[in-house]
Amino acid sequence: MTVVLEPIGVIHTPFGTKDEAPIHGAFHPDVIGTVEVYPEFEDGLADVETFSHLILIYHFDRHGPVHLIQPTFLSDDPHGLFACRRPGRVNPLGLTVVRLIERRGRELVVGCVDMLDHTPLIDIKPYVRRFDCYPEANDGWLEGRKNGPKPPGRE
Amino acid sequence: MTVVLEPIGVIHTPFGTKDEAPIHGAFHPDVIGTVEVYPEFEDGLADVETFSHLILIYHFDRHGPVHLIQPTFLSDDPHGLFACRRPGRVNPLGLTVVRLIERRGRELVVGCVDMLDHTPLIDIKPYVRRFDCYPEANDGWLEGRKNGPKPPGRE
Repeated sequence: MTVVLEPIGVIHTPFGTKDEAPIHGAFHPDVIGTVEVYPEFEDGLADVETFSHLILIYHFDRHGPVHLIQPTFLSDDPHGLFACRRPGRVNPLGLTVVRLIERRGRELVVGCVDMLDHTPLIDIKPYVRRFDCYPEANDGWLEGRKNGPKPPGRE
Repeated sequence: MTVVLEPIGVIHTPFGTKDEAPIHGAFHPDVIGTVEVYPEFEDGLADVETFSHLILIYHFDRHGPVHLIQPTFLSDDPHGLFACRRPGRVNPLGLTVVRLIERRGRELVVGCVDMLDHTPLIDIKPYVRRFDCYPEANDGWLEGRKNGPKPPGRE
């Protein structure tokens, strides 16, 4: 049984190409983007402005090939797809926690963006500390890996 | 343009009905479930076992009506859909951070489950502290709300 999704908006960012986009938005809190929600869904934004952080779920609409095991941005060693956040996924959905700076009607100005410009928006969920914040979590195989520059040609 | 997803597995939990399922798994770390990944995707689990926490994205396959504004589990006041985590969404995807207890081949034993039994699994992403943990986040309109029992008939 398949699941069919319909974008609820579009995300505008400074990144027109994969080479420009950072490894992860968390390392770049001051990179600003705009989340535009389509008019028919604007009412669903009520009270979004009370949150400091939001979870964006979006479509990796320009992802590369899907390999179940391959090297990643932060490692030359191959890792399983479900142990990585890379775009080429069986179900190409991305997830980024962004910092909400301002709501302007049906537009949200946010920091920490890392997705490509014009990325289709699938869902917005409030980031709730008691649901989503686990300071005791480890960083798995990423432990100790430096957030260096992206290896060229890799995604 | 629509996005078509294919489940990569199924989540087994103790909750056969909506009345049995808790408001959020984070309040019930000892409620154990099993994430079964289909055999054709098993290779993608390599190194998942190095993480203490995982993000599950799943299909709310038994959600109720979609209202852009309505009361929620934790509030009798109406709130916008995108300021809530409720199942009846424009794109019915759920997100829960679970605690990984053990990997057994293509099965993951996890704590903090809150989804219904037999929920279709869409994606597994590693929970990475430096990407996902924001202790400085507020709790928006949820601030100070008690995690009480679920109001009957609400979802």
